[in-house]
Amino acid sequence: MAEFKLDLARHERIGLDEAIFCAGKTADQIAAILDAFPAGGGLLLTRLDAAKFQALPPRLRDALDYEPLSRTAVHGAPRVPRRGDPVAVVMAGTSDVPMGREACRTLAFNGQPHTAFTDIGVAGLWRLLDRIEEIRRAPVVIVAAGMDAALVSVVGGLVRSPVVALPTSVGYGVAEGGMPALHSALASCAPGVAVVNIDNGYGAACAALRICSL
Amino acid sequence: MAEFKLDLARHERIGLDEAIFCAGKTADQIAAILDAFPAGGGLLLTRLDAAKFQALPPRLRDALDYEPLSRTAVHGAPRVPRRGDPVAVVMAGTSDVPMGREACRTLAFNGQPHTAFTDIGVAGLWRLLDRIEEIRRAPVVIVAAGMDAALVSVVGGLVRSPVVALPTSVGYGVAEGGMPALHSALASCAPGVAVVNIDNGYGAACAALRICSL
Amino acid sequence: MAEFKLDLARHERIGLDEAIFCAGKTADQIAAILDAFPAGGGLLLTRLDAAKFQALPPRLRDALDYEPLSRTAVHGAPRVPRRGDPVAVVMAGTSDVPMGREACRTLAFNGQPHTAFTDIGVAGLWRLLDRIEEIRRAPVVIVAAGMDAALVSVVGGLVRSPVVALPTSVGYGVAEGGMPALHSALASCAPGVAVVNIDNGYGAACAALRICSL
Amino acid sequence: MAEFKLDLARHERIGLDEAIFCAGKTADQIAAILDAFPAGGGLLLTRLDAAKFQALPPRLRDALDYEPLSRTAVHGAPRVPRRGDPVAVVMAGTSDVPMGREACRTLAFNGQPHTAFTDIGVAGLWRLLDRIEEIRRAPVVIVAAGMDAALVSVVGGLVRSPVVALPTSVGYGVAEGGMPALHSALASCAPGVAVVNIDNGYGAACAALRICSL
Amino acid sequence: MAEFKLDLARHERIGLDEAIFCAGKTADQIAAILDAFPAGGGLLLTRLDAAKFQALPPRLRDALDYEPLSRTAVHGAPRVPRRGDPVAVVMAGTSDVPMGREACRTLAFNGQPHTAFTDIGVAGLWRLLDRIEEIRRAPVVIVAAGMDAALVSVVGGLVRSPVVALPTSVGYGVAEGGMPALHSALASCAPGVAVVNIDNGYGAACAALRICSL
Amino acid sequence: MAEFKLDLARHERIGLDEAIFCAGKTADQIAAILDAFPAGGGLLLTRLDAAKFQALPPRLRDALDYEPLSRTAVHGAPRVPRRGDPVAVVMAGTSDVPMGREACRTLAFNGQPHTAFTDIGVAGLWRLLDRIEEIRRAPVVIVAAGMDAALVSVVGGLVRSPVVALPTSVGYGVAEGGMPALHSALASCAPGVAVVNIDNGYGAACAALRICSL
Amino acid sequence: MAEFKLDLARHERIGLDEAIFCAGKTADQIAAILDAFPAGGGLLLTRLDAAKFQALPPRLRDALDYEPLSRTAVHGAPRVPRRGDPVAVVMAGTSDVPMGREACRTLAFNGQPHTAFTDIGVAGLWRLLDRIEEIRRAPVVIVAAGMDAALVSVVGGLVRSPVVALPTSVGYGVAEGGMPALHSALASCAPGVAVVNIDNGYGAACAALRICSL
Amino acid sequence: MAEFKLDLARHERIGLDEAIFCAGKTADQIAAILDAFPAGGGLLLTRLDAAKFQALPPRLRDALDYEPLSRTAVHGAPRVPRRGDPVAVVMAGTSDVPMGREACRTLAFNGQPHTAFTDIGVAGLWRLLDRIEEIRRAPVVIVAAGMDAALVSVVGGLVRSPVVALPTSVGYGVAEGGMPALHSALASCAPGVAVVNIDNGYGAACAALRICSL
Ligand SMILES: Nc1ncnc2c1ncn2[C@@H]1O[C@H](COP(=O)(O)O)[C@@H](O)[C@H]1O
Ligand SMILES: Nc1ncnc2c1ncn2[C@@H]1O[C@H](COP(=O)(O)O)[C@@H](O)[C@H]1O
Ligand SMILES: Nc1ncnc2c1ncn2[C@@H]1O[C@H](COP(=O)(O)O)[C@@H](O)[C@H]1O
Ligand SMILES: Nc1ncnc2c1ncn2[C@@H]1O[C@H](COP(=O)(O)O)[C@@H](O)[C@H]1O
Ligand SMILES: [Mg+2]
Ligand SMILES: [Mg+2]
Ligand SMILES: [Mg+2]
Ligand SMILES: [Mg+2]
Ligand SMILES: [Mg+2]
Ligand SMILES: [Mg+2]
Ligand SMILES: [Mg+2]
Ligand SMILES: [Mg+2]
Repeated sequence: MAEFKLDLARHERIGLDEAIFCAGKTADQIAAILDAFPAGGGLLLTRLDAAKFQALPPRLRDALDYEPLSRTAVHGAPRVPRRGDPVAVVMAGTSDVPMGREACRTLAFNGQPHTAFTDIGVAGLWRLLDRIEEIRRAPVVIVAAGMDAALVSVVGGLVRSPVVALPTSVGYGVAEGGMPALHSALASCAPGVAVVNIDNGYGAACAALRICSL
Repeated sequence: MAEFKLDLARHERIGLDEAIFCAGKTADQIAAILDAFPAGGGLLLTRLDAAKFQALPPRLRDALDYEPLSRTAVHGAPRVPRRGDPVAVVMAGTSDVPMGREACRTLAFNGQPHTAFTDIGVAGLWRLLDRIEEIRRAPVVIVAAGMDAALVSVVGGLVRSPVVALPTSVGYGVAEGGMPALHSALASCAPGVAVVNIDNGYGAACAALRICSL
Repeated sequence: MAEFKLDLARHERIGLDEAIFCAGKTADQIAAILDAFPAGGGLLLTRLDAAKFQALPPRLRDALDYEPLSRTAVHGAPRVPRRGDPVAVVMAGTSDVPMGREACRTLAFNGQPHTAFTDIGVAGLWRLLDRIEEIRRAPVVIVAAGMDAALVSVVGGLVRSPVVALPTSVGYGVAEGGMPALHSALASCAPGVAVVNIDNGYGAACAALRICSL
Repeated sequence: MAEFKLDLARHERIGLDEAIFCAGKTADQIAAILDAFPAGGGLLLTRLDAAKFQALPPRLRDALDYEPLSRTAVHGAPRVPRRGDPVAVVMAGTSDVPMGREACRTLAFNGQPHTAFTDIGVAGLWRLLDRIEEIRRAPVVIVAAGMDAALVSVVGGLVRSPVVALPTSVGYGVAEGGMPALHSALASCAPGVAVVNIDNGYGAACAALRICSL
Repeated sequence: MAEFKLDLARHERIGLDEAIFCAGKTADQIAAILDAFPAGGGLLLTRLDAAKFQALPPRLRDALDYEPLSRTAVHGAPRVPRRGDPVAVVMAGTSDVPMGREACRTLAFNGQPHTAFTDIGVAGLWRLLDRIEEIRRAPVVIVAAGMDAALVSVVGGLVRSPVVALPTSVGYGVAEGGMPALHSALASCAPGVAVVNIDNGYGAACAALRICSL
Repeated sequence: MAEFKLDLARHERIGLDEAIFCAGKTADQIAAILDAFPAGGGLLLTRLDAAKFQALPPRLRDALDYEPLSRTAVHGAPRVPRRGDPVAVVMAGTSDVPMGREACRTLAFNGQPHTAFTDIGVAGLWRLLDRIEEIRRAPVVIVAAGMDAALVSVVGGLVRSPVVALPTSVGYGVAEGGMPALHSALASCAPGVAVVNIDNGYGAACAALRICSL
Repeated sequence: MAEFKLDLARHERIGLDEAIFCAGKTADQIAAILDAFPAGGGLLLTRLDAAKFQALPPRLRDALDYEPLSRTAVHGAPRVPRRGDPVAVVMAGTSDVPMGREACRTLAFNGQPHTAFTDIGVAGLWRLLDRIEEIRRAPVVIVAAGMDAALVSVVGGLVRSPVVALPTSVGYGVAEGGMPALHSALASCAPGVAVVNIDNGYGAACAALRICSL
Repeated sequence: MAEFKLDLARHERIGLDEAIFCAGKTADQIAAILDAFPAGGGLLLTRLDAAKFQALPPRLRDALDYEPLSRTAVHGAPRVPRRGDPVAVVMAGTSDVPMGREACRTLAFNGQPHTAFTDIGVAGLWRLLDRIEEIRRAPVVIVAAGMDAALVSVVGGLVRSPVVALPTSVGYGVAEGGMPALHSALASCAPGVAVVNIDNGYGAACAALRICSL
């Protein structure tokens, strides 16, 4: 019996496509899913690490637009670009880029324009203040930050748009795994910050897409 | 020296008013804040338990619209009602009503229409399916649920609007304090669910307000 | 002195055979156990990863029916098939297959018929509802799910048979290791769900076998 | 709008009645639920502490069969007694009686005969061995134990019936809240032990009822 | 035998006086300690809640300078004031005042001048920026903050003096007990922030005193 | 049916008497146990708080030797005194006295001589060094300490007798509940320290009694 | 400057030799320590994994008596055998052998006779009861067990000698890392069980040695 | 767009240079940062493991002063040496050397003299007491310790200078990851100990530098 069942009605139902979470799947299972996917559609693969990508049959590898830093791959054509102001994807430090990039790739696949802002953590506050006006113009602001995630609260206190916090597992000691970043975001002193799971760039982008589709 | 400094510019800056979190404050401190508040404005007080409310001077008590279940009070006039479809506030069980009601009161104070849906947890799935079409029409859906918070994922898989999960501390044993509900919401298999802190009805409403203000 | 002592009277005492948990044992220790095992009987090995299987002497490897996905091996003959309706083994996603398969293999070894239902998580609820009548006919329903494990509560609210939740370690961030799935299952809003340890497909099957032996 | 919606179809759907979890509800909410309940049926109330019971209107108090130790109340008539061997409810120590009694009351309300075995923890193993033959005859064995919950594994290794572990919050220090008892039960070295949430006597009984209804 | 032994040589040894931690002591034990204390010296009592203070014999109550908000009392004369710039005690919100005040009282008892800055959390960043020049002049900056404790990192990135983070237990949900504030401070992206235990205003002041004594 | 079953053969079996843990029992249950206890024997009651003691019938109260600080009561005659050097019960601070005293009372009840050493924590190391020779003479050393429990390692590095660490719940913030003290004792850099549960003075004394009975 | 300083006076001070904990040291550091060790003495090395052992210079490898399962090595001559009954080292399952063996090797190095009892966990209780009389004769009983560690309580309720629980990290899911085994041992319902850190066979043996030296 | 933005104004603002945290960065990203760094300045790289260092282009490797034990590298010239007494860096055991060395390297890069004291943990207290007078002369004392971190409290009770505790992840079982060491330091019975994140030698040095710059 087949080991998967694609939720092809998802876009019609909730406006978001099914995506393949590759972390717990073997290369064989992923290949079977790709082979079963109806031609003409587009499919996003997340958490596809380089070794697993290499283990796919060449014919499938060639059909994928793969980016190792974010561990994402796109099969088929992305959706046509939407109109409107770009979503802001703000990354506290260079180490948060892989997670922020997963969000960017998910937005792009869904046709949503976005702008990335990198390495503007609060340890050097001027880097954020330099660019805050540009960030304030975005319809949604995604903030990717690890360690203390203080950037989330500072941004949340300065912009009026919906803020989606994307806590990352960057850090060590008490910050190992990202719990302090997650908890800081959830306990943020800035009102109305909404939060997704640690390192869930895909989910942060989906939350933004739900908002931008209103 | 004064023990507080109101952030009166907050509405202008981010579109949300300063609110008073009463849990860690004495009745004296709250009274001083109310006295300092400029006439004509409106002010929301949260986590004001009945005993602390009773300890306020009568003159201040009379000036407050207090509701014990949600532990909220409104001082002065709420904002004028906004237009548009009502936000849906979905509560899994009767025990989640206090937190859901805190969200409702915050929405009302800010002039945002909303509809409450109570006791429609997934143990009796028909209760949710009966009302899902109405819920799908809301621009934002807040889902308040404790214990396993399975309702969050089921709703998230059925509606296209932004979903704000409000995990509650309802439960005991492993669910004491609300961690499983929070973690279920963060790890939801439905894409793009955004989450606020346990029992943070105020924050869930603020997240919805940021979205409705777009 | 011998480093093991087989509990050969177990089947007579509780109706379940001794099984070998290979995770903490060296290939040498496993080989010694197999050599000591009385001819004619059947023995189940669990958590035998591919590398350790390869490290066994060829003569023992040949005597084992090994399946890498579930990391199980069967030595000797399985028990004769029991009669009655098949147990349902419901797996939320493709990533839950290894744990669900460990349950299937344990049931098969003990002669218990079963049916597997794969990738029917609640994010696409129709996939479950399509097959619920078939699931309702099973004498016991095992539900393998990670992340939020919302499927456990939805199934528990729809079937009258005993439900054994098998939380899995599928997920990352707060779901890393499987705690939210375990806690969701334990705090399920559906009454009478019984739970086994994270990733314990063997234990879920044994619980089902105890029930089917009544 | 009403703050509750009874799941009256639950018995027909899954063979178990709706029950009222009183911990998170006010006396007013509970009274409203009882008033709305259709005459002729039976209703179980759990986690109703003595103070809240006293706060109900006298007319409702009189209609309830209340037991303070287990904090349960029965409204209306219990179901007619089922036939067959009694379920065994084994309690490790006197401190586990409230939780074990909640299970007994739930079984009785559903017409299921049962026998209670009290204070037979493994520190004095002879107390268990004295009664093990009687326990082995039960179709299901519920084991209520706190602290180290070692009784769960010992019973699980001696009986062939389904074993439902009911970990309790009895204990202090590392055992405060019942986590070690829960984790011991989940990690039991006896195969096929199924577990419910800490202090969830109601759930343990419901799991037993699902099994006895086969 | 006496139940206490004062460390009267402590000031000579490390420059800080013995202080009495009253939380785990009975009023009788505290009274015995005060009676045994040599005349002429000064003694600080911490965590002396109002009920325990009231339970002391009147003669001892009269001899104490008691402040309920910080739960501190001073017996005898404080040390003569030191010279130099005042230490800054920065409190994020009104709810952090009790802990900040414990620090202030400890500094005052030891003759160290200080200035308090209240309610200047980052949700309204201008409140901090308004006063940052004054704060930068302090030889040591103590930052008391709960919830996300984002203020710690923002201050740490703006001043060159030693920064002592005093995480507080202000908050609920994930912030209950103060862990996120503690972990944010420890994982601060601002380099060289030093941290004391949650709610340990006494310890933060002692750390500052060690520095000011250089 | 009786809710308790005394393990009267325990002394003969393991050399230690059954003791009654009162925390989870009602006054009625305790009274029933005392009434059932055979005349002539001795019985120790632990964790009997003052309110529960007061709720016992006067006739039983009079028959008990009750001490509120340690929450212990002795019913009947203690065992005859053993010979040999006294066990050392070392308490780090005054706040550790209740737990240390529970150990002392258990030793005394069993006829074991002991000496108490109070308030000799390592913050004032000279207090310990002053008395170390006396402590070194004890056949067993019990060390009761909360917070960082550094005293355990220092004593463990200075004496050759068995050291039983009794971590206490004294402390707040990270030390709330006693986990750091427990973990420090378990991870002690002094070799061969053995540890009992947090606040388990009874257990520490029983461990010492097992050793002294050799 | 040297990176180590041997505590050569330890045996004279506390009756136990310095031992080298190799886990956090490089092969170079270990070699330097061995080279600095005075000839004629004996030295125990713990947690020396096979790769690190292989990285030592051949001349040092040849001088060591190395055993890979317990990861221990002995340099120089062990102490002369003591007299008296052998200590019992009881191991619940085959997977606990490495930790139990570390205890055995430490006892042997110190000249203490011992007997090992393997694979006698409570899932097959008869295996323990078969050998309990022999175990009861030991002056100290070390019990190595992972998962639920129920064996600790069963043994503790059957023997009168000091019992040292050695919880192991054997297990997965909730048992990953050994916490449930540790907590079960600490919360044991058998009185006077003393506990060492997870997997600390060395420490369990040292505790036994302190007792046997009385 | 560039993935980094150096905070070159940091030294002017807070007296400490920007440092590069290499753990979450690819070799490519680190190379890009080094290439962008203005000539003439000095730059510290932390957590640069040997494999990543080897993956840098040879021209950059040659320009770095790399030390594998502390995983630090210095690019360009360190700052000119400061005057004054050396900071004391006290390491409990040989296994704490990598973290202590990271602190030493950071101090050296900033021109701050320091002295290292190695392997003087409290299990052999004489090793500390031998050198305490020398340690007391330091303007700041950094104490690196894992496991129980008892050394922190002993040193904190003996010196008057500021003490910066650097808890390390040395240990296993409950000490795995360093939490007990961190919590011991935070709950230290010695007053005024300030603490940094587990294994954060860089942060401990920065805290010392802030103090020494006063
Ligand atoms: N990186 C990701 N993080 C969280 N959820 C994901 C991620 N990628 C995909 N998903 C969701 O997880 C669901 C289950 O994935 P699958 O197991 O592939 O069916 C998909 O339908 C997506 O909605
Ligand atoms: N609020 C406090 N928090 C932390 N430590 C304290 C506090 N108050 C006093 N102490 C310290 O705790 C030590 C033990 O207190 P005591 O038990 O009274 O001897 C004192 O010597 C102080 O160094
Ligand atoms: N396996 C072990 N577990 C716990 N402690 C140990 C172990 N091996 C050695 N030790 C102790 O740890 C101390 C510190 O080890 P070292 O870092 O080598 O000086 C030694 O003096 C022993 O007392
Ligand atoms: N080992 C370290 N531990 C903690 N913080 C560090 C460490 N190394 C550098 N940092 C700080 O982390 C900040 C962010 O690093 P980066 O991501 O490289 O910009 C730097 O500006 C430093 O202040
Ligand atoms: Mg899918
Ligand atoms: Mg405010
Ligand atoms: Mg076996
Ligand atoms: Mg209901
Ligand atoms: Mg003191
Ligand atoms: Mg008893
Ligand atoms: Mg050493
Ligand atoms: Mg940087």
